[in-house]
Amino acid sequence: MSSLEQKSSNKCCDGELRKYSFTSSALGGLSANLNVFLPSSALAGGGKKVPVLYYLAGLTCTEDNGAQKGGFHAAAAEHQIAVVYPDTSPRGAGAAGEDEAYDFGTGAGFYIDATKEPFAKHYQMWTHVTKEIPDVLSKAGLNLDTSNASITGHSMGGHGALTIYLGSPAGTYKSVSAFAPICHPTACPWGKKAFQGYFANGLTDGSKHDATELLTAAGGPSARNVDILIDSGTGDNFYKDGQLLPEDLAKAAMSAGYDDKQVQIRLQDGYDHSCE
Amino acid sequence: MSSLEQKSSNKCCDGELRKYSFTSSALGGLSANLNVFLPSSALAGGGKKVPVLYYLAGLTCTEDNGAQKGGFHAAAAEHQIAVVYPDTSPRGAGAAGEDEAYDFGTGAGFYIDATKEPFAKHYQMWTHVTKEIPDVLSKAGLNLDTSNASITGHSMGGHGALTIYLGSPAGTYKSVSAFAPICHPTACPWGKKAFQGYFANGLTDGSKHDATELLTAAGGPSARNVDILIDSGTGDNFYKDGQLLPEDLAKAAMSAGYDDKQVQIRLQDGYDHSCE
Repeated sequence: MSSLEQKSSNKCCDGELRKYSFTSSALGGLSANLNVFLPSSALAGGGKKVPVLYYLAGLTCTEDNGAQKGGFHAAAAEHQIAVVYPDTSPRGAGAAGEDEAYDFGTGAGFYIDATKEPFAKHYQMWTHVTKEIPDVLSKAGLNLDTSNASITGHSMGGHGALTIYLGSPAGTYKSVSAFAPICHPTACPWGKKAFQGYFANGLTDGSKHDATELLTAAGGPSARNVDILIDSGTGDNFYKDGQLLPEDLAKAAMSAGYDDKQVQIRLQDGYDHSCE
Repeated sequence: MSSLEQKSSNKCCDGELRKYSFTSSALGGLSANLNVFLPSSALAGGGKKVPVLYYLAGLTCTEDNGAQKGGFHAAAAEHQIAVVYPDTSPRGAGAAGEDEAYDFGTGAGFYIDATKEPFAKHYQMWTHVTKEIPDVLSKAGLNLDTSNASITGHSMGGHGALTIYLGSPAGTYKSVSAFAPICHPTACPWGKKAFQGYFANGLTDGSKHDATELLTAAGGPSARNVDILIDSGTGDNFYKDGQLLPEDLAKAAMSAGYDDKQVQIRLQDGYDHSCE
């Protein structure tokens, strides 16, 4: 893993939006892009460290979508939080089949570590997001408190945020939120295709990366407290098509004994899958 | 001019962002795109009409840039204002030379009515923005009060906003604001190239589309009151290269006797030309 190389910086909301790249060991030596919004206090010197919010993007997206269209930075500046935008897959891995569909391969890494060839060498987005990026950020002198982090995302990135939150030791991330996340991937077409393509044991391994399965396995408040907020729109065609299944996550939460303060799932009338 | 054809609608900030197209007489019969954010009260029925803010985009942009990246809709919803996003030029005019550079022709209409061939037939963005779009909107049953309008823009679109405001009868637009506008186009490379390319009489005609010249000609507060707000960044390379020249507009305002309430020009430390 190389250190961060800064490609550009733009002043934004009294902070800076910076574009970085680095050579990613997790992604098999490929170059990885990363955007970071740094609020003013992180730039002011004096070593004041700020909390970190990871934003994971959806299918076909890059590190730019959330940074350019998300509209997060005014609120991040108000609360003095850094926002970190990883890419959604390795780029240029050269794996057979990676560029044949929008929902698998390039732009569709699903935030898992692939175990099936020809994807295992490069498609290690779980390790990239959970270990490598926090590591490279903490060594970059950016005044980020990577131990004080939360995670969010949209669609496939909402799946990533939920599964990384639930699949990491309690407290690794303070909270998770998601827009229109894929909540039950082992039961929807997108998730089945991805898990069968990336995992040697297909859906069996996929269940460890399935928010509904993970919440069931979490065992309820007596075993683990959670802080989950989901917004999903009723006008979302992917919701109507059964790709998102927030109702399955809601059932799992209820069965496990979580109340709607620990697992808050809001269906927003008429909103669709787009960011706008 | 055909009526508006709705291409899509996305719920946003309790309102809707709609994409329209129509056959534009002003643009010589070409299809023109137009985005409109409608706040909730315009959608609620009952015929309550809302004010309109026009946003004019910059070089290389389309009707999508401001709508997707501008972050305007939360504020527009708060104040119940519609935001209208025109394109920046005709598309597919087929005029020789229109696709040779980023700063002339396609994506670079400069909000003027061209008088020079081969551009005169299609490059009529002044008429398109000031007459045709208000007309097609007022006939579309969208509950817009097109007589209660203001105008804003970025870069070339800031030039468009300033010159349309100053070049229209007083009161046509309530106010104008602009991010990093081209303030003195007859004195900068972008403007000289555009005006010499689009106008039969080059810069002579161009002076009627030059904010600095128009403000000088406005004659001061005794002749016409104005309400102008400009934000331009000191980290903007186009500002450093002399493409924007807000200092020339400031001098013209002072010479004409406008104070900094009527013409407010703010240089923002370290901000660059990008929207982010």
